[in-house]
Amino acid sequence: MSQVRHTDADARQALSRLFAPIAADLALVDRRLQQELRHSDPFIDELAQHSFRIGGKRLRPALLLLTAQAVREVTPEHHTLAAVVEMVHTATLVHDDVLDEADVRRHLDTVNARWDNNTSVLLGDYLFSHAFYMASTLETTFGCRAIGESTNTVCEGELRQTNSSGNFWLSRDEYLGIIDAKTAELTACCCRLGAHYAGADEATVDRLTSYGRKLGMAFQIVDDLLDLEGEEQSTGKSLGTDLAHRKMTLPLIILRDQAAAADAERLQSLYEESDATHNSMLVDWLESSGALEQARRTAVEFAEEAAAELSTLRDSEAKQMLAEIARFVIARNA
Amino acid sequence: MSQVRHTDADARQALSRLFAPIAADLALVDRRLQQELRHSDPFIDELAQHSFRIGGKRLRPALLLLTAQAVREVTPEHHTLAAVVEMVHTATLVHDDVLDEADVRRHLDTVNARWDNNTSVLLGDYLFSHAFYMASTLETTFGCRAIGESTNTVCEGELRQTNSSGNFWLSRDEYLGIIDAKTAELTACCCRLGAHYAGADEATVDRLTSYGRKLGMAFQIVDDLLDLEGEEQSTGKSLGTDLAHRKMTLPLIILRDQAAAADAERLQSLYEESDATHNSMLVDWLESSGALEQARRTAVEFAEEAAAELSTLRDSEAKQMLAEIARFVIARNA
Repeated sequence: MSQVRHTDADARQALSRLFAPIAADLALVDRRLQQELRHSDPFIDELAQHSFRIGGKRLRPALLLLTAQAVREVTPEHHTLAAVVEMVHTATLVHDDVLDEADVRRHLDTVNARWDNNTSVLLGDYLFSHAFYMASTLETTFGCRAIGESTNTVCEGELRQTNSSGNFWLSRDEYLGIIDAKTAELTACCCRLGAHYAGADEATVDRLTSYGRKLGMAFQIVDDLLDLEGEEQSTGKSLGTDLAHRKMTLPLIILRDQAAAADAERLQSLYEESDATHNSMLVDWLESSGALEQARRTAVEFAEEAAAELSTLRDSEAKQMLAEIARFVIARNA
Repeated sequence: MSQVRHTDADARQALSRLFAPIAADLALVDRRLQQELRHSDPFIDELAQHSFRIGGKRLRPALLLLTAQAVREVTPEHHTLAAVVEMVHTATLVHDDVLDEADVRRHLDTVNARWDNNTSVLLGDYLFSHAFYMASTLETTFGCRAIGESTNTVCEGELRQTNSSGNFWLSRDEYLGIIDAKTAELTACCCRLGAHYAGADEATVDRLTSYGRKLGMAFQIVDDLLDLEGEEQSTGKSLGTDLAHRKMTLPLIILRDQAAAADAERLQSLYEESDATHNSMLVDWLESSGALEQARRTAVEFAEEAAAELSTLRDSEAKQMLAEIARFVIARNA
C-alpha cells in the first residue's frame, strides 16, 4: 500500500482533531451514555460499563453531530440521538463478537470472552432495547422510525452475510448490497438524523444521507482489507476472522473475477482450506495480483463520492471535518 | 396435583374459546404478522415465517385486545401493538432457545437446531428491531416508549437470571423479582397498552396493568412447574432445562427454605449434580414434600389477585374472558 496509514493510537489522535468542532457535544454524549448505562444491579452495571468502553471511536455520534453543525447547530435532540446510534452500534458489536467468536476488541476482552455467549446475547438485547427506549423519549416518532428502520436493515444485512458464508461465488453486487445494509445504512442514518433535526431541507437531508452511506461503504471495504492485512496489535481486535469464517470480501471477489478458470479453482481450494498457512498464501496472492490495491481503490472512490455530496453546504469547520473524515476512513490502519 | 390440566392441543382449544370476543381481531393480527415478516430475500423470508410459526398461543396479543375491548373497543392502533408484542415475545423465545440450547418448541425445531446459533442471534435482533419499527409507525411515542421500557426490563430480568444460575441460595424475593422482570413486565405492558389506547382513565390503566403483571407471575411459576413435571410430548418443548442449567425455581426455593440444615445440604448436592437420575430424585422429593403443591398455591394466589383487579370494569364478555384466562394459566398443562 502506498498510503500512509495509522495505528489505533494514531487513529484516535487523528479523530480527536477531526471531532474538534463538536468536542464539547461529544463529551456530553459520552457522559450521557455512561449515565444511561448505570444500573442498580452490580452485574448489569459492570456489563454495561464494559460495553461502554468497547464502544470505541465514537465515529457514528460524531457524524451525527458534525452533520447537524454543518447544517445549522447541535440541539438536545442530537445529543440523545448520538447516544442512541452509539448504543445501537455497540449492541451490534457485542453480538458480532459472539458470531465471530472474537476474544479481543479495542484491546479489551470481548463480553463473550470475559463472561460467556449467553451474557453477550442478552447484553446486546439490553443495549438495543435501551437505545430504542432513549429514541422514544423524543417528542415525535421520527427518530424512533429512522432508528427502527435502519437497525432492521442492519440485521437483514448480517443475516444475508451469515447465509452467504462459504459461498465462494458471491457476486460483487451481492457483497456490496450486504455491506450497504450491515454498515452503510447506520452511518447514512446518523447523517440523516443530524441533518433532519437541524432543520435541513429535504434535498440537503438526502445529500447528507448519501454522504453517510458512501462513507460507510468506504469504511467497511477498508475494514475488510484490514482484517486480511492488519495485525492484531495495531487494530486492537481479533483478525483473520473473515477467512476463518469463509466470508468473501472485495479483494477475493476481484481476484476470482479476474482469474483464469484454473486459477479460480486454485483460489477456491485455498479459500476452502482456511488455516494459517493457506490464509497467508492467499493474502500474498491477493497482494501480488493487485487485488488488494484494486479493492482499496474502490474504497477511495466511495470516499471521494461521499466528499462530493458536501459541495452544496455552506463553508464551515464542520463541513471541512466531514470531508476530512472521508479521507481518514481510507487512510486508517485501525 | 388435584387440578384438571390440559395438554397442548387442549390448551389451544381452550384458548380459542377464551379469545372468542376478539377472534376476528386476532386473525387480523396474525395476517399482519405474516405480512410484516415476508421478505424478498428467500433466506430471511424462510426464517421469519418459521419464527411466526413458533410464536405460539398468541396469549400476549389476546391480552392486549381483550383489555381494549373490556374498556371500550379495539382500534387499528391495538392491531399494530398486538403484532408488536407478539414479535417482541417471539424475539425473546428465539434468543431463549439459544441460551437454553433447546431443540424443540411448539413441536417444531428451534431456529438454533434447524439453522445455527448465529442465525438465531441475528433473527432475534431482526424481530426486535422490526417490532420497534412497527411501534414507531403509530402517531405518538407512547407505544414506542412503553415497548422500549418493557423490553429493556425483560432483558434485565434475563441477565439477572443468567447471573443467578448455579446460585442455590437465590432468595424467594430475588426469584420473584426476576420473573416479574422477564415475564410479568411484558404481560403487564400488553394490558397497559390495551387499556391506554382504548381511552381508559389512569386508575383503570393501572388496575389492568396490575392484572397483567399478576397474571404473568402466575404464568411463569406454572411454566417453571411444568419444566419440572411435564413431559416433552404434551408441552411440545424441551423440558428439564431449568435443572440442567441449575436455575433455581420456586419449588426448590420453598423446599430449601423449609428444610433442616442437613436436608438442605443433601438438596444442594442433588441440585449441583444435575443428571437424569439426580433430577428424578429431586422431582420426587419436591412432590412428596409438598413443595410443588405450595408453589402451585402461590401461582393460584397470583391468579386470584389478577382476577380481583377486574372488579371495577363494566360487565362484558371480554371482562369475563380475562377472568377465565387467569383461571386458565394455572390449569394449563402446556
